[in-house]
Amino acid sequence: MSPIQANTPKGTRDFNPGQVARRSYISSVIRDVFERYGFQPLETPAMENLETLLGKYGDEGDRLIFKILNSGDYLGKARNSKSEIRNASSKELTPLISEKALRYDLTVPFARYVVQNRNDITFPFKRYQIQPVWRADRPQKGRYREFYQCDADVIGSNALLNEAELVKIMNDVFSKLGVDASILINNRKILESKILQGVDRDENSEQLFSSVTVSLDKFDKIGGDGVTEEMKKKEIPGKIIENVNFLLRMSGSNEEKVNTLKKDLSGADSNGLEEIEKIFDYLKDSGAQNVVFEPTLARGLDYYTATIFEAKVQSEQSESVAGGGRYDDLTNVFGLKDISGVGFSFGLDRIYNVMEASDLFPKNIGTVTKVLFINFDEVSEKYVLPLLQQTRDSGINAEIFPDQVKLAKQMKYANSKNIPFVVLVGTEEMKNGKLSVKNMETGEQQALSIDELIETLKD
Amino acid sequence: MSPIQANTPKGTRDFNPGQVARRSYISSVIRDVFERYGFQPLETPAMENLETLLGKYGDEGDRLIFKILNSGDYLGKARNSKSEIRNASSKELTPLISEKALRYDLTVPFARYVVQNRNDITFPFKRYQIQPVWRADRPQKGRYREFYQCDADVIGSNALLNEAELVKIMNDVFSKLGVDASILINNRKILESKILQGVDRDENSEQLFSSVTVSLDKFDKIGGDGVTEEMKKKEIPGKIIENVNFLLRMSGSNEEKVNTLKKDLSGADSNGLEEIEKIFDYLKDSGAQNVVFEPTLARGLDYYTATIFEAKVQSEQSESVAGGGRYDDLTNVFGLKDISGVGFSFGLDRIYNVMEASDLFPKNIGTVTKVLFINFDEVSEKYVLPLLQQTRDSGINAEIFPDQVKLAKQMKYANSKNIPFVVLVGTEEMKNGKLSVKNMETGEQQALSIDELIETLKD
Repeated sequence: MSPIQANTPKGTRDFNPGQVARRSYISSVIRDVFERYGFQPLETPAMENLETLLGKYGDEGDRLIFKILNSGDYLGKARNSKSEIRNASSKELTPLISEKALRYDLTVPFARYVVQNRNDITFPFKRYQIQPVWRADRPQKGRYREFYQCDADVIGSNALLNEAELVKIMNDVFSKLGVDASILINNRKILESKILQGVDRDENSEQLFSSVTVSLDKFDKIGGDGVTEEMKKKEIPGKIIENVNFLLRMSGSNEEKVNTLKKDLSGADSNGLEEIEKIFDYLKDSGAQNVVFEPTLARGLDYYTATIFEAKVQSEQSESVAGGGRYDDLTNVFGLKDISGVGFSFGLDRIYNVMEASDLFPKNIGTVTKVLFINFDEVSEKYVLPLLQQTRDSGINAEIFPDQVKLAKQMKYANSKNIPFVVLVGTEEMKNGKLSVKNMETGEQQALSIDELIETLKD
Repeated sequence: MSPIQANTPKGTRDFNPGQVARRSYISSVIRDVFERYGFQPLETPAMENLETLLGKYGDEGDRLIFKILNSGDYLGKARNSKSEIRNASSKELTPLISEKALRYDLTVPFARYVVQNRNDITFPFKRYQIQPVWRADRPQKGRYREFYQCDADVIGSNALLNEAELVKIMNDVFSKLGVDASILINNRKILESKILQGVDRDENSEQLFSSVTVSLDKFDKIGGDGVTEEMKKKEIPGKIIENVNFLLRMSGSNEEKVNTLKKDLSGADSNGLEEIEKIFDYLKDSGAQNVVFEPTLARGLDYYTATIFEAKVQSEQSESVAGGGRYDDLTNVFGLKDISGVGFSFGLDRIYNVMEASDLFPKNIGTVTKVLFINFDEVSEKYVLPLLQQTRDSGINAEIFPDQVKLAKQMKYANSKNIPFVVLVGTEEMKNGKLSVKNMETGEQQALSIDELIETLKD
């Protein structure tokens, strides 16, 4: 039998020890900041019922959800429920042979959780969640089929103080990580008022607005001309295109932009501008930096109803590293009305790539073992084992090479694991009770007692 | 449209903030001990190629693997590769419409990783991995379809010192968690020699041995008589049943059992007993407790070839909370020969249940926020916000209630989150700069400056 190919599935990745350490560094900074602001951790299962996920992310999203095949004789069971499966298309067959799917984001499972546990939750509920999500997207540079989101949401409070705190959280995390990011804010109410300004509202208005936001969302990739081009192709009315161009041409400070729109919309924006002003007022003395009112920011998902955020790295690609907004009706599909929520998500993998590219990780972040005891022979092994245990009992990560092989091989092992100190114990050392301790960075060798070694390693 | 039911899929669970905190407590103790012994973290994707997983866990295992439906028009693609799909059974159709599956354990993905990265790995490779796995098992008390394993393995070293260190790791973890567990050790070589003693070896011997270990594995559930009964039903030869009963009747100290078997097998066990003796010799002065040589321990999986371990809680059900062993050939299926490995896995969920039942978690483990600032009105909110920020900047988890609602509601919120201190700022407090700080446990109220408050909270 020929061997099975040892490969990860397309678009998925292993994380080696160094990568896990750097990823854990990012997630622990995020976790600490979330908790600093009183958010509590939540975890939901990787799988959700298919009906929980379908219809929440648009048609494209539905296609990208990974479905799990039912167990056992799934065709037999499907036949019992419906006899037409022999002629079914893939799309028709799927719901008959798949009841579960992998989560596509953390927001919808959170909404499901809130409704399921509404009687036990004291609102407002501030939760954070750091878990992987899965999307059957075409893999490309920086886009994976398994990636991690780090979400913080407040549900059951309308206060704009929440929006301000979420912006401050983004600011604190980027500042601690050394990532130079801008935090863009807009409000879907402003966007809708401006885009539909001077247009007769009818049953198509919602859909027109939604279609325009999809185009506007591509601004970073295709530029202003590209957005206009796409809107024309979609036969968006000229007045709307004109309105969008008004937004695209806007410039100035946050305050100037607010004032321009105030004058232009003259109170017709159902208080979106007041909300923006209030949020900036909260942020004024908070130390939050690079917070920008960006009237063209759209965010693709339709469930956002007011404030929207996006954090972008200040580089040429201006990559999005976080995003979110307020949603007034997300729990409604599960039967719980009138619960407003606001939240956002950090993209851990994107932050990782930015930090890697700019060399922002602290040094020695992946070093686990502090000292390796060389294993010369049975006698020295026997002598060393109690010393090893004493070192570990002092809270120091330590190991002995398990096999009695050539010194060169053991030294190579220490190097590959970035172990800073190596202890060599030969006949001489056993006689005088002093260990030869080699500093692997400087190459220096010292004779130390076990207590002296432990003191050295504790520093 | 009637609302969608808000439910987790059968056999899966949400973890609320208190549960996440307790689970993190367990995994961080495990992680610390793994690193204390020089193990490095690894993470693999939730999905593996189906062919990576199939055939590694027996027929029953193959059935319990969750398969992921291919994306897009999977039936169309399946038709292109094979025209018979209309008449296919579920079993025949599965490989045509599913190429990926959720990992079933962490050992096989680890073997796959090692082979895939063999040119970059310096052996011996000591890795740990704490991640969920999925099995389409019938859910029942204590058995879930998504659960967490915490694995430590050493691959590329034959030294028995590894076995001894793994036992010590189990001991250290249980000791730190306060879990009263026994660590059972056996060796498949001893087991095979004894079970097949006096039986003519032929091409069926392997299979007979494997079949007996499956029965023996049920000893805890069905007892010695049950094991005998089952072997008779399977028409296991009488001599073998007699040999198994010899093992089941054994008693005495570890040393006595080793000596009994030494005499009985008189060197015919291809050094399994020597290995056991050597491991106990390593453990003698290590402080490891409750390590028991258990000659009936079998472990279901066929890939174990020498030492096997299992940790059991000392209670009536004697539930298994960890298990593992040495495997000499696991990477062979992926084309890498002669790499021996040894490892084991903690069952996080089982340890959790044991600790919950015996009330072993430290108090206040789920408390995130240390102090809540009450939000009376706009004036007090404005006064409080800079104090809140100062508290957070001092490294203390703090929050303000986001809405200006009745005090009772805000106090209820503090109670439900176990927040130990609440700060009330009214006209009086703003005038004299002293905050009213209420200790939520004792009910005491103190007047403190912000600096005094921060000092109090830091303790």
